Amino acid sequence: MSTIQYTVAELADRFGLTFKGDGARVIDGVGTLAGAGPSQLSFLSNSKYGAQLADCRAGVVVLRQENIDDCPTAALVAADPYVAYAKIAALFERLPAAPVGIHASAVVAASAQVSPTASIGPCCVVEEDAVIEDGAVLGPHCIVGTGCVVGAQSRLVARVTLVTRVTLGKRVLVHPGAVIGSDGFGLAFDRDHWIKLPQLGGVRIGDDCEIGANTTIDRGALDDTVLEEDVRLDNQIQIAHNVYVGAHTAMAGCAAVAGSAKIGRYCMIGGNAGVLGHLELADRVTITAKSLVTHSIREPGEYSSGVPLQDNRQWRRNAARFKHLDEYVRRLSALEKDSNNE
Amino acid sequence: MSTIQYTVAELADRFGLTFKGDGARVIDGVGTLAGAGPSQLSFLSNSKYGAQLADCRAGVVVLRQENIDDCPTAALVAADPYVAYAKIAALFERLPAAPVGIHASAVVAASAQVSPTASIGPCCVVEEDAVIEDGAVLGPHCIVGTGCVVGAQSRLVARVTLVTRVTLGKRVLVHPGAVIGSDGFGLAFDRDHWIKLPQLGGVRIGDDCEIGANTTIDRGALDDTVLEEDVRLDNQIQIAHNVYVGAHTAMAGCAAVAGSAKIGRYCMIGGNAGVLGHLELADRVTITAKSLVTHSIREPGEYSSGVPLQDNRQWRRNAARFKHLDEYVRRLSALEKDSNNE
Amino acid sequence: MSTIQYTVAELADRFGLTFKGDGARVIDGVGTLAGAGPSQLSFLSNSKYGAQLADCRAGVVVLRQENIDDCPTAALVAADPYVAYAKIAALFERLPAAPVGIHASAVVAASAQVSPTASIGPCCVVEEDAVIEDGAVLGPHCIVGTGCVVGAQSRLVARVTLVTRVTLGKRVLVHPGAVIGSDGFGLAFDRDHWIKLPQLGGVRIGDDCEIGANTTIDRGALDDTVLEEDVRLDNQIQIAHNVYVGAHTAMAGCAAVAGSAKIGRYCMIGGNAGVLGHLELADRVTITAKSLVTHSIREPGEYSSGVPLQDNRQWRRNAARFKHLDEYVRRLSALEKDSNNE
Repeated sequence: MSTIQYTVAELADRFGLTFKGDGARVIDGVGTLAGAGPSQLSFLSNSKYGAQLADCRAGVVVLRQENIDDCPTAALVAADPYVAYAKIAALFERLPAAPVGIHASAVVAASAQVSPTASIGPCCVVEEDAVIEDGAVLGPHCIVGTGCVVGAQSRLVARVTLVTRVTLGKRVLVHPGAVIGSDGFGLAFDRDHWIKLPQLGGVRIGDDCEIGANTTIDRGALDDTVLEEDVRLDNQIQIAHNVYVGAHTAMAGCAAVAGSAKIGRYCMIGGNAGVLGHLELADRVTITAKSLVTHSIREPGEYSSGVPLQDNRQWRRNAARFKHLDEYVRRLSALEKDSNNE
Repeated sequence: MSTIQYTVAELADRFGLTFKGDGARVIDGVGTLAGAGPSQLSFLSNSKYGAQLADCRAGVVVLRQENIDDCPTAALVAADPYVAYAKIAALFERLPAAPVGIHASAVVAASAQVSPTASIGPCCVVEEDAVIEDGAVLGPHCIVGTGCVVGAQSRLVARVTLVTRVTLGKRVLVHPGAVIGSDGFGLAFDRDHWIKLPQLGGVRIGDDCEIGANTTIDRGALDDTVLEEDVRLDNQIQIAHNVYVGAHTAMAGCAAVAGSAKIGRYCMIGGNAGVLGHLELADRVTITAKSLVTHSIREPGEYSSGVPLQDNRQWRRNAARFKHLDEYVRRLSALEKDSNNE
Repeated sequence: MSTIQYTVAELADRFGLTFKGDGARVIDGVGTLAGAGPSQLSFLSNSKYGAQLADCRAGVVVLRQENIDDCPTAALVAADPYVAYAKIAALFERLPAAPVGIHASAVVAASAQVSPTASIGPCCVVEEDAVIEDGAVLGPHCIVGTGCVVGAQSRLVARVTLVTRVTLGKRVLVHPGAVIGSDGFGLAFDRDHWIKLPQLGGVRIGDDCEIGANTTIDRGALDDTVLEEDVRLDNQIQIAHNVYVGAHTAMAGCAAVAGSAKIGRYCMIGGNAGVLGHLELADRVTITAKSLVTHSIREPGEYSSGVPLQDNRQWRRNAARFKHLDEYVRRLSALEKDSNNE
C-alpha cells in the first residue's frame, strides 16, 4: 500500500489554516494527543486535555490560537480544531476498494438499472425496477428490493437490506445490518385476533444521511417515512412507520421513535431515548440519554427524564418511597394546613 | 402492472358492509383522509379526525354509521372502520413476486425437504433436514438451519436466520434481520471465568405470528422458547431463552423479555419495555413504554414505571432530590409526630 | 445420528465428582428436574427447587452433598452443581457439521490467508488480507472484511459481519447478525451541518469472548475498541467506539455502552442498562437492568436507577408529583424551620 503524505504547509494551505513551526514536516497519519508520533497529526479541541500538550510527540497539532504557546510541536491553528481535524483526517482514511461493475456472484434483475460507474459487491441481490445511480457502492450481501433507488455516491457498506419503495438520496452511508423499508407495525384488533394492515408507503432518505449498523427504518402505512438531508442515526435505532425527521438531526445508539412522530431539525436524541407516537418535537430540541418523550415539545431546549444512579441499597429505599409519593405530598399539605391554622 | 380495481358495491358485498352513495365508483387504491383522491378509499376510525371529512376528496370512506352525515363522498359503513379498512387495503397490496422453485444461487442440503410449491430466493441456505412446507416463501439471503421447519404459507421476507431447532407454524411472517434460534445467554461462573451452558432446546413459533426486523429470539436451554399463535413482535425485540409468550400478545419495538419469563395471552408490551427473568404476567396485562417489570403480575390491567419528561434544569433539581427521598419521608414522619404531640 | 452415551461412573470420573447409586446407569442426554427421563441427567443448583427432587425421574441428578438424602435417583455430588452441569451438558451438544474447506459459493480474496483446517461456509465473503486461523468456522453468509483476523477455533455461527481492522482472539463465538468493526458515530458540527470523522481504529476481541445475535461493536476513532478475554455479550448490545471492556465482564441483552467508556473486569451489566461516554467503572461493579450510569464508579458493588412498576393509575399520581419534588422538599424544610422556631 502506498503511503498518503502531506506536509504541514500543504495541510494549512488546503484547509485555509495558519501554521506555526516546521511547515516541511511530513505527515502520514493521525493519532491521539497521547499516542501520535512524529509523522502524525493530532488535535486539541477540549481545553480539558491541554495538559497533554506538554508530552505530545505528534508531528503537528491542530489547536486554537489560545493554546499555541503551550504546544511543543508544530501547530495548525483553527477556529474549530475538531472540525478541522475531521476534514484533515478524512485524507488519511483508506476505504476498501470498490471495483466498478457487478460481481459475478451478484443477482441483478433484468429490469434493474445499474449505473456503469456503480459497484455491486459479492452476493448482492438487486430486484426488479431498482435503480443504482452513478458511483454508488453496494458492499457484499446487500439487498436492494423492488423499485428501490440508491442515489449517486451512496454507499451501503455491507449486508444492508432495502426492502421495497425505499429511495436514498446522494452520498447516503448505510452501515451493515441496517434494514430500511420493512413493514411498519400496523395491526387492527378484530374481536379476538390481530389483522395486519398492509404497509403501502415507502421510505425517503435525504442526501448525506448516515444510518447505523442494525438500525431499522420501517416504511409508511400510506404516506412515506421521511428523513430529510444530513440526518445522522447511530446503531440499533428504530424508526417506526410514518416518522418524519428534520434535517441535521442526530440520534445516538438505541434511540427509538414511534409511529408518525415528527422530529424537528437540528435535534439531538440521546442514546436509548424514546419518542412516543404522533408527537411533535420542535427544531433544536435535545433529549438526554434514556429519556422518554411522552408529550409534544414546542420549545427548543434540553429535556430529560429518569432518576439518578445510586448504590443499590440506597436506591431501593428511595424507589420504595416513590410508590407512595402522592400520599407523602398529601401528608405534607395537611401538615402545612395544620401549621397555618395554629 | 395491471391495475387492481373494485367498485364500492363490490367492496361492500365482499366484506358485508353497507354503502351510501355511488356504488359503481371504481376504487384502485387507498390513501389518507387528507390525501386520497377520487379513485381511492380512505377511512375514519378516530372521531378526533372527523373534521377532515369536510375536505375529503376520496372516492369512498369507510366509517361508522354516526359519521355518515358528515361525509361528502360515498361511504362504506362498518362497526369497526379500522378493521374493515385493514381487510380492504390488503386487496391493494402488491407483494414482490416470489417465483416457485429454488433459485440457482441458493444452497440446499440434500436431506432438506422443500415443497415443490415453496419459493427459495437468491443466496438462501437451507441446511440438513430442514423442512420448507407448501407455499412458504424465503426471500433473498435467508438461512434455515439444521432441522428447522418453515410452515406452510410462511414468509421470510429477506435475510432471516433460523439457527437450529426452530419450528415456524403456518402463515408466519418474519422480517429482515430477524434471528431465531440463536444460543440463549447461559453461563456458569467457575471460580474466575465463565463456562457456557449448551443451549439444547429449540424455538416454537405458532401460526400467524409476525416477527419484526432485527428481532432476536433465543432457543431454550433445555425446553423450548415458545410463542403461541398470533403473537405480534415489532422490530428489535429481544426474547431470551425459555420465554413463553401467550397467544395474541403484541410487543412494540425494542421491548425485551428476559429468560424463562412467561407472558400471558392478549398482553400489550410497550416500546422498549422490559420484563425480568422468571416472572409471570397474567393475560391481558398492558405495560406502558419503557417500563421495567420487576415482579410478577397476577391481575389484568395497565402498569407503568418511569418519571415524566421535564425541562432539563427542572428535572435536575427533582432528580437530585430523589436520591434522598427516603430521608425526606422520615423527616415528614418526624414532623407529623411532633405535630400530633403538640 | 449415533447416540452420545456415558455411564454415571464415567461422568463422575471425567469431571472429578463422586456419585451415589447406580454407576452403570447409561446417560444419553440432559433435561430439567421436572422433565428428565431415566436416561437423562439433571441438576439441582438452587435449593428453592429442592422439592422437585421427590418426583424426579432423571437417571442421575447433579447436586450438592446437602441434598443427597432427598434424591430418589442416582446422584453426582458437586461443590457447584451448575458449573458441573454446564461441563457435562456440553458433552451432549450436537453442533451442526462444519466441513473443513471453502464452500464453492464463498468468495475469498486472493490475498486472504485461510487455514486448511478452517471451514468457510456458503456465501461467505473473505476480503483482502483477511486471516482465518486453524479450526476457525465461518457459518453461512459471514463477511470478514479487509485485514480482519479470525483466531483459531473461533466460530462465527452465521451471517456475522466483521467490517475492517477487527481481530478476534481464539475460541471467540459470534452469533448471527452481529456487526463488529462498523464505523463509530463520530461527527463534528460545522456551522450548519455535520462532518463525519473517519474511524481509523479497529476492534480487538480477546480469547473466549462471546458476542450475541445482532450485537454491534464499533471500531475506534483512532485507538481500538477493546474487549479483553472472556467478555460475554448477550444479544442486541451496542458497544460504541473506543469502549474498553475488562476481562470476564458480562452484559445482558440490549445493554449499551457509549464512546470511550472503560468498564472494569468481572462487571455485570444488566439488561438494557446504559453507560454514558467517557465514564470509568471499577472492577466487580454490577449495574441492574435498565439503569443508566451517569457518573464514574470507583467502588465495587451494585448500582441501580429507575422507579418501581405500579398500577398505571397509582403510578400517574406519583409520577406527576415527581415533577415538583424539589418544591415539596423546600416546603418540608420550611415546615421544619417553623416547627423548630415554635
